[in-house]
Amino acid sequence: MNALRYENQKLSLADLAKPGADGEAIVRVTFSGICNTDLEIARGYAGFEGTLGHEFVGVIEELPADGALARSTEKAQRDGPLLRRGLVPGQRVVGEINAGCGTCDLCRAGDPRHCPARTVLGIVGRDGAHAEFLKLPVVNLIPVPDSISDEHAVFTEPLAAACGILEQVSLTKDTSAAVIGDGKLGLLCEQVLATTGAPVTLIGKHQSKLQIAARRGVEILTLDRLKSEKGKFDVIVEASGSSSGFDLALDLVRPRGTVVLKSTFHGKTDFDAARIVVNEINIVGSRCGRFLPALKLLEQERVDVESLISEQFALREGVRAMKRATEKGVLKVLLRP
Amino acid sequence: MNALRYENQKLSLADLAKPGADGEAIVRVTFSGICNTDLEIARGYAGFEGTLGHEFVGVIEELPADGALARSTEKAQRDGPLLRRGLVPGQRVVGEINAGCGTCDLCRAGDPRHCPARTVLGIVGRDGAHAEFLKLPVVNLIPVPDSISDEHAVFTEPLAAACGILEQVSLTKDTSAAVIGDGKLGLLCEQVLATTGAPVTLIGKHQSKLQIAARRGVEILTLDRLKSEKGKFDVIVEASGSSSGFDLALDLVRPRGTVVLKSTFHGKTDFDAARIVVNEINIVGSRCGRFLPALKLLEQERVDVESLISEQFALREGVRAMKRATEKGVLKVLLRP
Repeated sequence: MNALRYENQKLSLADLAKPGADGEAIVRVTFSGICNTDLEIARGYAGFEGTLGHEFVGVIEELPADGALARSTEKAQRDGPLLRRGLVPGQRVVGEINAGCGTCDLCRAGDPRHCPARTVLGIVGRDGAHAEFLKLPVVNLIPVPDSISDEHAVFTEPLAAACGILEQVSLTKDTSAAVIGDGKLGLLCEQVLATTGAPVTLIGKHQSKLQIAARRGVEILTLDRLKSEKGKFDVIVEASGSSSGFDLALDLVRPRGTVVLKSTFHGKTDFDAARIVVNEINIVGSRCGRFLPALKLLEQERVDVESLISEQFALREGVRAMKRATEKGVLKVLLRP
Repeated sequence: MNALRYENQKLSLADLAKPGADGEAIVRVTFSGICNTDLEIARGYAGFEGTLGHEFVGVIEELPADGALARSTEKAQRDGPLLRRGLVPGQRVVGEINAGCGTCDLCRAGDPRHCPARTVLGIVGRDGAHAEFLKLPVVNLIPVPDSISDEHAVFTEPLAAACGILEQVSLTKDTSAAVIGDGKLGLLCEQVLATTGAPVTLIGKHQSKLQIAARRGVEILTLDRLKSEKGKFDVIVEASGSSSGFDLALDLVRPRGTVVLKSTFHGKTDFDAARIVVNEINIVGSRCGRFLPALKLLEQERVDVESLISEQFALREGVRAMKRATEKGVLKVLLRP
């Protein structure tokens, strides 16, 4: 099968054997999405080698016939009606990307996102989704409601990451919130925060991207108009992927306010500890979120992902697609095996 | 009057006129305490010039006869019995160090600690406590219960700063907590955290200081014994005043745990954003706390400050006392006008 891989400091399309199940499920990928993390990996910043990609929607190709399925069913009973539809070959699914050991306290509590022995699809120790087939533990798979198209379902993972903010920080309609960064992650975060009723301001430097939010009635601010906003916001989400975005967040947040760090920047960054202590700012690192809230938002059409799709490429054009994803003004690039 | 001042990049004892009241209260200082912030200011890192010192206990020398007193009484009615003893000349007092504008939303809500126009005793725009007399708004003064000695009451401000952590982070007897830094601030933080019933570990490198905590039954750890503790703690308070302490805190905190930044380090510091995002760590800047919880702890003898006093100097020996406070193994140095 075709797979887009990063190996020996090089990105290339490879022809691999279809993965064996080994007690996990095999999924035939319908769409995968290129994330900034993929671009960072392909720059060599993340220490991962293998098949890239962790955003996908697909169809179950093969299930193990043993206890793994029983465990999944048990989890489904806990997690509610969306999951009780059952997992059978042919079922359309998305998949949580962290695969835990299954036995540590965190995994047994149903949250393998911080399992110290975890693998992560296309990021840590596990081949990813930019391929014709992938494999994941059955317990990671979640059926996609019929009303969500494949092109929208492929946004479940990044949308879940945005929803993760609401697991960590509580917002109400009285919370003054801002998102720094008008890229695809920022545009998702802005929409998720707005579902709480909080007034949200999107801060960025690309008029074409800011206009996507402005059309929904979101207040937008360009960098040159920020002087009067210092110390104004209760909650700021840093989603620009740059250290200057973090500095800006510290300027804009009120004393005792919260800065959510949603994007990683590679390497070490200057850090003004005195400002954080004197203004008693709360900084919250935020990575992955749960999939069910994201699927619900997509099912209820409470977020717009359609306008974030810049382009689709065939998987065999994956190297070119990755290059395209780095270009100015481009948002989500999808791959189709 | 004598005052210990930092001016023109130089620390010296000066002879000043006794301050005029100008609508504020005049306090005759009984003891003042040297804080690491004083040492930072005297190194030129904080941009303050004037009389140093913000930790004190004293006696009211003079009160304004007007509305300022009425306002204070009104606040006292709200704040409870400790304050209702009233403020009269001769009353022994400690004083909150942030003096707000009195009219902004924060000040009107009774918390001037983040008033953007605030002055801060001996730190921002207001002469401090290493002097024979100081002045503060009446509303800042809090009577000291009779059972607390002057030598203990002078610890109210740093103890309140330690208590401020509990305004921001909630701990229970099931919270695994650690304090990094065995200096005077670390030893106060460790005791305050322990009042919640949480098991607290103190991490430092000075055996003589660690033993002060060990004698109270606190678990102590030296830096060479930390390898097995990685990712173990729910809450870590960084009170070492060094950037390496912050790095260590990120090593020791569990995923989704909390690091409280209690001490400032001057200048900018390397900051590993990826680690904070991937492990979803919460970082809480913490500066000043309320005085009443600190006075209650002193009154109930639930914290030991006696063993933190290294030495007393006469105020006229202030320059020598400041030098002494920088020496290895020295904890709190008190000045006596």
